Amino acid sequence: MVDKPAPDATRRSEKSRRAIYAAALALVGEVGYPKTTVEGIAARAGVGKQTIYRWWSSKADVLLEAFLDLSRQAAREAGQEPYAVPDTGDLAADLRTVLRITVDQLLDPRFEVPSRALAAEGLVNEQLGREFVTTLLEPQLQLYVARLRSAQDAGHVRHDVDPRIALELFVSPLAQRWLQRTGPITYAYTDTLVDYALHGIAPR
Amino acid sequence: MVDKPAPDATRRSEKSRRAIYAAALALVGEVGYPKTTVEGIAARAGVGKQTIYRWWSSKADVLLEAFLDLSRQAAREAGQEPYAVPDTGDLAADLRTVLRITVDQLLDPRFEVPSRALAAEGLVNEQLGREFVTTLLEPQLQLYVARLRSAQDAGHVRHDVDPRIALELFVSPLAQRWLQRTGPITYAYTDTLVDYALHGIAPR
Repeated sequence: MVDKPAPDATRRSEKSRRAIYAAALALVGEVGYPKTTVEGIAARAGVGKQTIYRWWSSKADVLLEAFLDLSRQAAREAGQEPYAVPDTGDLAADLRTVLRITVDQLLDPRFEVPSRALAAEGLVNEQLGREFVTTLLEPQLQLYVARLRSAQDAGHVRHDVDPRIALELFVSPLAQRWLQRTGPITYAYTDTLVDYALHGIAPR
Repeated sequence: MVDKPAPDATRRSEKSRRAIYAAALALVGEVGYPKTTVEGIAARAGVGKQTIYRWWSSKADVLLEAFLDLSRQAAREAGQEPYAVPDTGDLAADLRTVLRITVDQLLDPRFEVPSRALAAEGLVNEQLGREFVTTLLEPQLQLYVARLRSAQDAGHVRHDVDPRIALELFVSPLAQRWLQRTGPITYAYTDTLVDYALHGIAPR
């Protein structure tokens, strides 16, 4: 929105922006989505309400951007840049690597607490849920689609397989264990999922 | 609690019990778990609060039993009795059948609305979430474990496969699509999951 700001103004904006993201994530984790307000985020970030409305139109917008930023940060910390599923030519190894990074992220409280709050709201608030999926989840799933397509080109995945469904064989079990606490989340577990997804459970 | 009641009392109790289940499910779907109260359930069911406390110790208890009853009812309506994954000897066909029944159930508003409310609460309320999984979800997943064990005995699933993980290849993708609305839920979709899970996505 700001057209060619002076360097000082940019630094100030960047600092406010970070404070607002942190406040939004902390608040939603503590009180849940319905009780999180733009006023509350502003107060906690130490900025005026107008500062938030200058950049975002609603609390949902602030939160979605805060989560995008959090995901990018986690990817950067995990050395997962450029933001993609690695492609060493060994599909199983690459999937094991990226799922192990996901395990670490899912168990990191900085990520877990606010993510649960947003996911819980998305279950019952259809509009927010769809925005959450379109903005945050689906772009990450498309990274798997790209990797599976490359594996199809290399002859490591059958050509009649739909990559958008196939990725769910390893991503969704991990997601459900995390969301609903249906079982432990470990590297051994995700490694096993990769093995079963690639080779099936029927005799070979 | 009631020791050998007279037939009339049993009938009256059974009617109250049904009214209480229906009230609890309707209320949680309408106002969410945190705002559902024993008082509200009693008022809606047209019974006294004490009637509820005679049978259950908390709103969580009422709701868990109401969901158990709902699941049994859905299974009965789908002709899925005794309550088990069918075992015709054809694993793929049996899994396709039971997943199609699950698709119908997930898309039935009687089930969907209250289930979403309870699942959303379970995401952020760890105690309720764990109770929900132990009482409602895991017993259903164990039906798949039993079917996969039988398939291992018949040589249709490899012996080194862990049935408790393997079932997640087809159950969790469907659960995630339903919970987070990440994609359409159709028979073609669940049929595909069964195929991929049994035979893997790598060239055979």
